[in-house]
Amino acid sequence: MNNQLAQLQNWLGENNMDVAYISNPTNILYFTGFESDPAERVLALFVFADQDPFLFTPQLEVESAKKAGWKLDVYGYLDHEDPYAIIADQIKKRNANPTRWALEKDDLPVQRYEAILKQFPDATFPGDASRFMENLKLIKTPEEIALMEAAGREADYAFEVGFNALKAGKTEQDIVAEIEYALMRKGVMHMSFDTIVQSGINAANPHGGPEANILTPDALVLFDLGTLHKGYMSDATRTVAFGKPDAKSLEIHKVCLEANLTAQAAIKPGITAAELDKIARDVITKAGYGEYFIHRLGHGIGTSEHEFPSIMEGNDMIIKPGMCFSIEPGIYIPGVAGVRIEDCVHVTETGSEAFTHMTKELQTF
Amino acid sequence: MNNQLAQLQNWLGENNMDVAYISNPTNILYFTGFESDPAERVLALFVFADQDPFLFTPQLEVESAKKAGWKLDVYGYLDHEDPYAIIADQIKKRNANPTRWALEKDDLPVQRYEAILKQFPDATFPGDASRFMENLKLIKTPEEIALMEAAGREADYAFEVGFNALKAGKTEQDIVAEIEYALMRKGVMHMSFDTIVQSGINAANPHGGPEANILTPDALVLFDLGTLHKGYMSDATRTVAFGKPDAKSLEIHKVCLEANLTAQAAIKPGITAAELDKIARDVITKAGYGEYFIHRLGHGIGTSEHEFPSIMEGNDMIIKPGMCFSIEPGIYIPGVAGVRIEDCVHVTETGSEAFTHMTKELQTF
Repeated sequence: MNNQLAQLQNWLGENNMDVAYISNPTNILYFTGFESDPAERVLALFVFADQDPFLFTPQLEVESAKKAGWKLDVYGYLDHEDPYAIIADQIKKRNANPTRWALEKDDLPVQRYEAILKQFPDATFPGDASRFMENLKLIKTPEEIALMEAAGREADYAFEVGFNALKAGKTEQDIVAEIEYALMRKGVMHMSFDTIVQSGINAANPHGGPEANILTPDALVLFDLGTLHKGYMSDATRTVAFGKPDAKSLEIHKVCLEANLTAQAAIKPGITAAELDKIARDVITKAGYGEYFIHRLGHGIGTSEHEFPSIMEGNDMIIKPGMCFSIEPGIYIPGVAGVRIEDCVHVTETGSEAFTHMTKELQTF
Repeated sequence: MNNQLAQLQNWLGENNMDVAYISNPTNILYFTGFESDPAERVLALFVFADQDPFLFTPQLEVESAKKAGWKLDVYGYLDHEDPYAIIADQIKKRNANPTRWALEKDDLPVQRYEAILKQFPDATFPGDASRFMENLKLIKTPEEIALMEAAGREADYAFEVGFNALKAGKTEQDIVAEIEYALMRKGVMHMSFDTIVQSGINAANPHGGPEANILTPDALVLFDLGTLHKGYMSDATRTVAFGKPDAKSLEIHKVCLEANLTAQAAIKPGITAAELDKIARDVITKAGYGEYFIHRLGHGIGTSEHEFPSIMEGNDMIIKPGMCFSIEPGIYIPGVAGVRIEDCVHVTETGSEAFTHMTKELQTF
């Protein structure tokens, strides 16, 4: 059994809990090495304080789970069977009557919670395994960091393709098409989120996406993208010049870059998440653009796009080696222009290292 | 307020329920016209038996919701605020103390269920709005069918591109890249699921996907794909010959095609889902391949990939005009070959019409 599973068992024991029901497929992959999207079917990992865990999958996937390297018990069910009746049988074989349960409360739907309650009418649910998982996944191992570096290299390649695709008359969506096509031709079949290319005033909408409109001449173009590499994500943003943007655009790029570089240089063990946010925000505020930086500085990243630590005001979490997160200041002036510059980094003993290395200085195409 | 919202209100009234909490973003789009992926933030629609509903979104999205055409109240919250405290205030203004709630139990996570319970300690949850939504969305309107026809035309184009991309030395993933690139160049930015291209014995795994392996010479190639068109999905499968497949491959294609055509011809109002499944299964069983048809005949489709009606043994649901579902018999012989042929159709007063029109006869490339 791997070290992460042992930590979950310890947490259960320390909190006097009988069993944890892990339901999030990403977290099942994290613990077991078995990657599966069960759609509406049931995929579950049950972990006990003092018994071996077991995996539960649709019958068709039992063999795949074993092939993926899961050495402990795995049970399957057929479509016409009640999965929770089978689960209950197996749990009762291990633990006469578990009453204190931990659930992944961020993900587990009420319908499945009720199915557990039907099988175990005395169950209580004091533990939120979602919170435990956030903390467990906070510090990445060297193996995880190596996968995120590989994902970062794919993102760097995506930028190169996207920048070279910028041509008068093309649309934002055309550029996305070129990026994703080039990645698929290299076997990168999944982006970590929908690729964003926004030009001119469209880039001033940090919640928008690529439109069918033609690239604005002489304006900034914002690229926000990432890939999924063996379950681990990259996420990076560059804003480049297409032609000759106006003075205001050039100025906000300069300010945003300074905020990015200043915050990234300040990362080291011992600083807090809130302090990092403030360092970047102060640069932008002093330059007079504070009101246009309307989101947090960054988010944790790993097997999911948004995890711990959140780099924002009010979060006094102390930064430690092995944490991985984005630094992504942005300035969005409605109707004028938008800029965001982002690397994800991992924290080292003395500072940090970025997963993406494409230059952040203003490039012109 | 639209007819669908009125039906939800009626259902609440008839079942003596006070309020429904609609949390699934696809269903919020269905009721309100507002499309949004809230990620970890809260997006919700609260519908009352005898009061106007209200929409609840992150503050940044309030204006977008109004622009999307939502004419009734919409309330927002900022990241540092407790969304459920604000929701509770608004609900209490409309209904002094709602005790009987309907939740979308297939989707709503336990964490949000507990947040509701914290604000409304007397709440009970007798209603499963997921079940109501399945039935509400079962019969498509002419407007919905028109969108699914548009999605079907995109899928037909995808087949054309994919078939023409078949060349010796290319990989399954290369073919996927060509298909998705061509669609994006036409502004189709989202597939309804990961495009499947499987060649030779890989096609015998109905749960597999496109691999980096080179196309098997003289074998069948299976294409399963669909697009998302303004919120509505297409989904279709064709199996074609790449070179000269062996006699066994040709035979199972012939049997599968007969099963597909026979079942599709049998669709009409009044037949049951189970009867349709049996009609296709009997063709395959009589030909001696019953043990290799290891899944249901079809699934409903619309704003989601798998919805009602499920076309399978044991489902006595009576087929009615306006229902939309797939007919997708398959024969998978491990280590030998696999074939699946699928159209999605909508039921008419007298029969059915397919959303995809690419020929199902064996084509050779």
